[in-house]
Amino acid sequence: MRILIAPDSYKNALSAMKVAESLKAGLQKVLPDAEIELLPMADGGEGTVEALIDATRGQIIKTQVHDPLMRPIESSFGITGDGITAVIEMASASGIQLITSDERDPWITTTFGTGELIHAALDKGCRDIILGIGGSATNDCGMGMATALGVKFLDQSGNPVLQGGGMLGEVAHIDMSGLVARIKDTKIMVACDVTNPLTGPTGASHVYGPQKGANPEMVKKLDSNLKKFSDLILEQLGKSVAEIPGAGAAGGLGAGLIAFLDGELVEGVPIIAAKTGLDAAAARADIIITGEGKIDSQTQFGKTPYGVARVAKKHGKPVIAVAGTIGEGADELYGKGIDAIVSILDRPRSLEDAIKETPTLLEATGVRIARLLILGQGK
Amino acid sequence: MRILIAPDSYKNALSAMKVAESLKAGLQKVLPDAEIELLPMADGGEGTVEALIDATRGQIIKTQVHDPLMRPIESSFGITGDGITAVIEMASASGIQLITSDERDPWITTTFGTGELIHAALDKGCRDIILGIGGSATNDCGMGMATALGVKFLDQSGNPVLQGGGMLGEVAHIDMSGLVARIKDTKIMVACDVTNPLTGPTGASHVYGPQKGANPEMVKKLDSNLKKFSDLILEQLGKSVAEIPGAGAAGGLGAGLIAFLDGELVEGVPIIAAKTGLDAAAARADIIITGEGKIDSQTQFGKTPYGVARVAKKHGKPVIAVAGTIGEGADELYGKGIDAIVSILDRPRSLEDAIKETPTLLEATGVRIARLLILGQGK
Repeated sequence: MRILIAPDSYKNALSAMKVAESLKAGLQKVLPDAEIELLPMADGGEGTVEALIDATRGQIIKTQVHDPLMRPIESSFGITGDGITAVIEMASASGIQLITSDERDPWITTTFGTGELIHAALDKGCRDIILGIGGSATNDCGMGMATALGVKFLDQSGNPVLQGGGMLGEVAHIDMSGLVARIKDTKIMVACDVTNPLTGPTGASHVYGPQKGANPEMVKKLDSNLKKFSDLILEQLGKSVAEIPGAGAAGGLGAGLIAFLDGELVEGVPIIAAKTGLDAAAARADIIITGEGKIDSQTQFGKTPYGVARVAKKHGKPVIAVAGTIGEGADELYGKGIDAIVSILDRPRSLEDAIKETPTLLEATGVRIARLLILGQGK
Repeated sequence: MRILIAPDSYKNALSAMKVAESLKAGLQKVLPDAEIELLPMADGGEGTVEALIDATRGQIIKTQVHDPLMRPIESSFGITGDGITAVIEMASASGIQLITSDERDPWITTTFGTGELIHAALDKGCRDIILGIGGSATNDCGMGMATALGVKFLDQSGNPVLQGGGMLGEVAHIDMSGLVARIKDTKIMVACDVTNPLTGPTGASHVYGPQKGANPEMVKKLDSNLKKFSDLILEQLGKSVAEIPGAGAAGGLGAGLIAFLDGELVEGVPIIAAKTGLDAAAARADIIITGEGKIDSQTQFGKTPYGVARVAKKHGKPVIAVAGTIGEGADELYGKGIDAIVSILDRPRSLEDAIKETPTLLEATGVRIARLLILGQGK
């Protein structure tokens, strides 16, 4: 029996590779002769760099950048085993987890550090960039990111505009002449799991502004700034970004990546699957095991288990999804490529306890799955 | 596919029949054409009456008896579908749950009510009695039980001795002449899951006395009383009961049932299996599902899942055990007849919450098991 284990990480508990290794340990106890392949996966969110580096035997590059409040911090990104693909999580430079609750202020926070990470990747010779955007502290439409890569944002008087979503309304001229030249030869794939437009009631400011620290009045001003800014982009760069689904991701960074870097918004799992060789691995396997910390009705909207299942079904392969929590609506995944959903829980436990015991619970789940599979075979 | 579901009850949560029905509901969702047979099981402990009545379409008989402190209470026992087998749980008349913590006092508590239940069963024409003993409040070696059935316990002066483990030392003469005659034609099978002898450091008083309210000094006196009493039984009835494994069960009720009623200590599951027709049902099935609230290293010592597995293995049938809690050492059951152990838990939950949701969780587990079985078949 050939088994492919291609899970996401379990948030706050275990990396995708460790999840896969733990399941393998359990499966092997029962099926010592099984060929088991491990392919850590991700959807562009937290854990994407680690999963892709683990899957492709790539490397982590550490580099100094600026956080959302322009303080220097050590950050990092990955280069996959092919040597030319950078994997960047925006959150590692511009994430909301980098600032305190009191510091949340989308009027001034910036994606400058994300631009620095892209710059560092270019410096390393990367020509493909997979950029996961999610969990940002910002609402600056990528102005900071573009600034770090040489774009100039000037006011009516021709002076540089300060960083932050509050300043977007001041921008009168976008000067692309200083943009790092290598960007033109670089493919930027933005893994994006939301479909919000840039502005309006379902836009970046209204939906995500409050959790980033904006009060209702600031939300309105930020939204108005994004509107003005996107009008300017249309006028001066000839790009209509406001209504693109996902343009509102990460405080408009989605729109900015399209506008300034010719980035492409993509679903995370397929692009990561392509880089890890999931398709070929699925073709080789008899059974595919995937999983994520929580599986529920949201899983079908771009999460790893659903993405893996889609690839598996191309090859007609059965899929077992292993989760810590089987949440509301998980049943909807039956008939959408996932054949069985199994929880790692073995008794009543607190979340804290389950997280602590995740490796052990995964291993025991591997045993359980293997035993039920054998049993189904009538052995 | 023919599936036999033969679980124990889930303690504090659900009867064996409801457990079986919930699992069936889930299995049927995935396997609508499966033939599913339900056979609620028990091991002689709590839930035995309900399981046997449900399994055989028997009836519950309500009757008034005396509790461990000789207060009148309403109690009940079962008569199985064959009409001549009584199923009695000692705890429903003499159980520790019938008195408060403050009332615990094995010096005076009595098994009189258990004798009354046996009497009532005889009055209903029963000739087989399955008596589950466990959870008693008593340490009276069955003196109360025997008294209720006509045996007289007299002191040196020929006066009746009062009830209670503290009085056993006063008994000088056992008068069997008044014992209800029908006992002679009645087979009494005592389902017993402990192997303690009557007396000594591993005997009834030392091991179970403290939890029944005895302080260290009382434990010694109770143990000494049991010793004297068993010497008297040997001398006057010619029966050596003190060293029989299980004689110390239920405060020596095990010994008393042997001594006064010619009862036989048996493992609970096999005798209950015989009454429910488990053997034939296992022979008919392709897969057998059993289970209990908790499965751990203790399960192999007379618990239902292990007993069911033994019967299943006689017929070479695979066994899946479904538990709320998979406890320490559950793995020991692999290779002892149980092929897979599955928990009903689907996420981190408190015990309280898991108990409340047990029917739903069981149903979802039925779905999961069915899906993994199909998957194993390579469908």
